[in-house]
Order: sequence, then C-alpha cells, then structure tokens
Amino acid sequence: MEIKLEANVLSANDRIAQENRRRLAEHGIFCLNLISSPGAGKTTLLERTCELLRGRLRVGVIEGDITTSLDADRIARHGVPAHQINTMGACHLDARMVQKALEKFALAELDLLIIENVGNLVCPADFDLGEDAKVVVLSVPEGDDKPAKYPAIFQRSAVLLLNKIDLLPQSNFDLARVRKDLEGINPGLRLMEVSALHGTGLDQWIDWLQGRVQAKRKG
Amino acid sequence: MEIKLEANVLSANDRIAQENRRRLAEHGIFCLNLISSPGAGKTTLLERTCELLRGRLRVGVIEGDITTSLDADRIARHGVPAHQINTMGACHLDARMVQKALEKFALAELDLLIIENVGNLVCPADFDLGEDAKVVVLSVPEGDDKPAKYPAIFQRSAVLLLNKIDLLPQSNFDLARVRKDLEGINPGLRLMEVSALHGTGLDQWIDWLQGRVQAKRKG
Repeated sequence: MEIKLEANVLSANDRIAQENRRRLAEHGIFCLNLISSPGAGKTTLLERTCELLRGRLRVGVIEGDITTSLDADRIARHGVPAHQINTMGACHLDARMVQKALEKFALAELDLLIIENVGNLVCPADFDLGEDAKVVVLSVPEGDDKPAKYPAIFQRSAVLLLNKIDLLPQSNFDLARVRKDLEGINPGLRLMEVSALHGTGLDQWIDWLQGRVQAKRKG
Repeated sequence: MEIKLEANVLSANDRIAQENRRRLAEHGIFCLNLISSPGAGKTTLLERTCELLRGRLRVGVIEGDITTSLDADRIARHGVPAHQINTMGACHLDARMVQKALEKFALAELDLLIIENVGNLVCPADFDLGEDAKVVVLSVPEGDDKPAKYPAIFQRSAVLLLNKIDLLPQSNFDLARVRKDLEGINPGLRLMEVSALHGTGLDQWIDWLQGRVQAKRKG
C-alpha cells in the first residue's frame, strides 16, 4: 500500500498547480493556459478577447515574459486587471510563479483568468499551472508541419486557435495536412480558424469561452 | 592559483563544445548554429542556401528536432549530407548530441557545417555547441517586439536573417523599431532582409558565408 501511495506523490510543481486549481475553483474561475511560439499572436488575440467579453465576463490576465512588461501594458489598456510575471530568463511559467501572481488579483471579482505563457512551443507544455484547459495558438506563417514536429502541446490542448488565417492565400500552408496530423495526435482538439488582427472567426472562440465559464460556475 | 584555475573550469557542455570546436577547426570547417522560433523559416532558408552554394562550397547539415526526420529529408533532397538529431523531447540541442552527430560525417569533405537547432527562441541560446557563430532567424509575422522580449539570442548572434520580408506590406511590423532595439542589444549584429521562399536578399548572406569560410581556412 505504501508503495502505491508513493507512486502517486506529485512533483513539487504539480502539487502547487493543484493548490492553484483548488483556489480558482473556490471562486468559480475558469482558467486557461495560452501557449504558442513567439509571435503567433497570443497578445493580440487576448486584446480582442478582452474587447469582445467586455460587459459579459469579468476577465483577468497573467502575462508571462522572460523580460519586459510590454504585453501586460497592452492588456491593461483594455481596462482589464493584468499582472506581469518576468521569468528572469526561464523559458516557461511554473505553478509557483502563478501562485504568487494570484495574490495580486481580487479573485472574487473574476469569471475568467487567462495566463499567457512565455513564447515557446516546447517547454511550457510540460508544466501544469493549475489551469482548466490549455489553448495552443499556431499561426499560418509558422507552417503546417508544426503539430507533427511539436506534438506534445497539441496533444494536451483543448483548443487550437489557427491564427493569421488571412495569410493562407499567400502561403503554402496545407490545412488538410494539419487536420490529418491532428487526428492522429489529438482527435478531440477543437480547431478554430481566426485572425486576431482582423477580428475574424472569433465568435466560436467567444462562445466556447462563455460556455466553459458557465459550466465552471455550475460545477 | 588553484582557485583561479577552478574558476575557469568549464561546465560539461562547454567542455564538449570546445572539443567539437577543436575538431571542426582541425578540418578547417566553419560551423553555424541556426536558431529561431518554430516556423520562422530555418529549413526553407537552408534549402535555398544549399542550392546557392552548390559547386561553390561543400556543405553539411545537422538537423535538430524533437521528433520526426521531416527536415533532414528536405535537406537530403538537395544532395547534401544531412543527419538528424532527435532530442526525444528536449527543447534544445546540446554539445554531446552534436559530438555524436559529427561521427556520421566525412569531415575532410566539408567546408561549412550548419546546425539547425530545435525551433525555440529561448533555450538554445544558452547552449554552446562548438559553433563559430550563431545566426538567428526572425520572420516578419512574428512581430517587431521579439528582440526586446527575447534579447539573449539576439545578443549572442553574429547575423540576424529577417525572413518573410515579402509580408512586410501587409503587417504592422516596424523595421525602424527593430533596428533601434538591436542597437541597444547588439550593435555589431548584421541584419539581412530576406525571403527564403521567394529567394530574395540572399546574395549578402551567401557572400557572408563564403567570406567566413575563406577566413576560417586561412586561420
């Protein structure tokens, strides 16, 4: 019996992630961990999301960056509580960083917390932050081979936001290939084609967010 | 005196990197470590480079990927010796992986070795592989804030290949901002505006490679 228990001991990160998850659940907050390469458009997407949810959901944002507070500044302009985590060189957020950042929010005032991870398609996939779901952003100019080459994050995400869809006609991006690769990697993944810059295709994303927030409140 | 020596002891990775460097120098091979986010266009750029150098320099390529051999297959089609390193989940190449890969090449038959690192703008910056120079690829759709947000790799590179320059007119990418940020980060960095897909702006890149290979042979 003891051996069995020992196998269930969580790593330090996972233990703190579970504490974060419990704390957010107490407040009925739905939490997302947003992951992509640098420049896929996470921050622009977040800005659009904040605009579209204004008056409908109370949103908070944690911005993860290696250095600078450029992203938190961009989000704060939308009247949303946004706090920056600077990882000081680290290539991903971990649960302890998020735990500290949570102290800065009035959690009773939030419905939805979005954590924008460091721009990195690899390392953040391995660190549970206490979120309800991971969302991966892939942009058309990055190429259609990315799910095959970086499967972990596509495997662990609930939604793939395929961003910069307006650049499809000028690219050699093969959407059918992506769909086929994803069927092997994660058949349950919801793919949404969007352009954060032009504001297209975001209805389904906003609907999904509202649905998940409602489900979390009831839960 | 002993204390001074101890301070100079290199880490395990750096020690192997130095061995790689010595080995390549013995054969007069100039070696590059090519780093970027996923999808910035490293492999397409390498394919173009192999085409343009055919009959002029003897090129070898090491392809670093977390999984799959998609990239090495693409390069091998150009008649260039290409060997794949699969990192099995690791987010960067290290010197030992490169040391093993070097065994697969006939080093006496090479002038230039290009190592394509794992797609990641963060972690590979910290690992010396034994290269003569790092080259960073940034693509226009990734955005003009990347040098400010991920300074380490821009600080440590000799050349910045600004790729997908053909997408500049449809983007909000501010080239003047990038130049200004880079002056603070690394004033010696050579910025070259290119489109690997369309083959534009590559003359200066090929000239630079040939110059560096010649200098290495004489050295």
